[in-house]
Amino acid sequence: MQSPVALIPQLAAHIVAAGGKRLRPLLTLAAAKLAGYRDGQRHVALAACVEFIHTATLLHDDVVDESALRRGQASANALFGNKPSVLVGDFLFARAFQVMVEDGSLDVLRILAEASATIAEGEVLQLITQNDTSTTEAQYLAVIEGKTAALFAAATEVGAIVADCGPARQAALRSYGHNLGVAFQLIDDALDYSAAQEALGKTVGDDFREGKITLPVLLAFQRGDAAERAFWRRTLEERAQAEDDLPRAIALMQKHAAFADTVGRARHYGQVALDALEAFPDGAERRALAGIVEFCISRAR
Amino acid sequence: MQSPVALIPQLAAHIVAAGGKRLRPLLTLAAAKLAGYRDGQRHVALAACVEFIHTATLLHDDVVDESALRRGQASANALFGNKPSVLVGDFLFARAFQVMVEDGSLDVLRILAEASATIAEGEVLQLITQNDTSTTEAQYLAVIEGKTAALFAAATEVGAIVADCGPARQAALRSYGHNLGVAFQLIDDALDYSAAQEALGKTVGDDFREGKITLPVLLAFQRGDAAERAFWRRTLEERAQAEDDLPRAIALMQKHAAFADTVGRARHYGQVALDALEAFPDGAERRALAGIVEFCISRAR
Repeated sequence: MQSPVALIPQLAAHIVAAGGKRLRPLLTLAAAKLAGYRDGQRHVALAACVEFIHTATLLHDDVVDESALRRGQASANALFGNKPSVLVGDFLFARAFQVMVEDGSLDVLRILAEASATIAEGEVLQLITQNDTSTTEAQYLAVIEGKTAALFAAATEVGAIVADCGPARQAALRSYGHNLGVAFQLIDDALDYSAAQEALGKTVGDDFREGKITLPVLLAFQRGDAAERAFWRRTLEERAQAEDDLPRAIALMQKHAAFADTVGRARHYGQVALDALEAFPDGAERRALAGIVEFCISRAR
Repeated sequence: MQSPVALIPQLAAHIVAAGGKRLRPLLTLAAAKLAGYRDGQRHVALAACVEFIHTATLLHDDVVDESALRRGQASANALFGNKPSVLVGDFLFARAFQVMVEDGSLDVLRILAEASATIAEGEVLQLITQNDTSTTEAQYLAVIEGKTAALFAAATEVGAIVADCGPARQAALRSYGHNLGVAFQLIDDALDYSAAQEALGKTVGDDFREGKITLPVLLAFQRGDAAERAFWRRTLEERAQAEDDLPRAIALMQKHAAFADTVGRARHYGQVALDALEAFPDGAERRALAGIVEFCISRAR
């Protein structure tokens, strides 16, 4: 994060110090260990690259979403303005590639460059589906595969690359990361309508206020009658929201089991992730990665 | 620019179709030829990478500057909104790295990753100096070396890399690009206060309205008396501008030869760029690159 332009480390330090689970770099570290990487420190530098790319996307997301809060604190754009947030995002993105070049693996560069392009595609697709209740579950899945699962998959695959564990185990770790990422985002999207969210220090209903079409909404909309669909169109498409609309949205989701079924979909992807780990012998590292699946899904309880 | 998310090629095509001089990719092509590259097509793909990085920065710049126009047409942010502009910038940036990975040279990746980080640093530094009349000429130079010269230098150095012309000529081409880039930006900043700008289809006074501290301003401010400095502080720091302030600013620049001396500084860097070309024997390619220096400076006439 170092730069002679002091605002860059200041702004970057703000978002890094604000916390977060550091889930993605942890995946790179754990995947490298599970894949048999023992002596070097490459996984540490590359885990930092993964987190830098993630942080860059968060900075840009908060500008795009006009978010005032990130991780329970003032967002970088709220504190420093949109302009430095966009530019420091660009800086962190470039720095990530500089660190990868120093590492010297074209495979790693290929995986993370592709993930970066896919993230942007997913974010644009999310913009297009925003406020559109005719979004299909397939489109929603494409959004979260792009904006979230792509970097999870890249994070674990990079661990496989540094361990040089062969194509089958590399594919297994990639599959684990991808499916974990889909499960993670499904739970995230369910939590946005859940009281459990408040226990995690986040506000409930952000997606609702922005008109994001996530799976709990899709399920409640598809299973709803004409009056309910009119409610979703008014609140999410026309964005005409009154004070008691969020409680009503949550009640409709409960009525149609939209929340429980979103968690159910997440369990499906979590199970695929767990099965991918069967490519590796049982042991502390495999149990740790299996535990991450459980952790992600249990957030919704 | 291809993507299944149709908005991405649409937005990217808009900014590409809007024109521009394509100066940076041209530098990569010409540098590769001058350095002796004859048979391959690597320079074409890498020239596209250079233009993609440039286009990504333009998309982000226009969001950061809230520009309504780019190359005489509606800017992408004005037409498509800030959100897709930020994200398609990210996409093009990632695509550039994907194409570089396909090319396979870690040297090229290193040069363009470093240039990308330096551009972001220069842009942040520009934000910091904006509206600050105490900015020094050294700070201004650091801004334009970052935001402009870094990519010019990288563009020509990449040409040297594909030609594998050895460290001395590689350094010469890098120096040519860097000094040309500084000269180019100096002229650009002078043009913003010049009637010649209108002949190029651009509006005069954009920098003045935004309170950008460029060399013509710096020189007029430093050479001005107390009343003149108060004028610059009011218009650029406090941004309290009346209708006849731009003509007055231009008159003050003429009074203090700020415009002519900015062009003079550009000539200095242009001469350094020309001297760097002396590392190569005379010929059509060297004369073409020398001609670019003359073209850049002659824009101010």
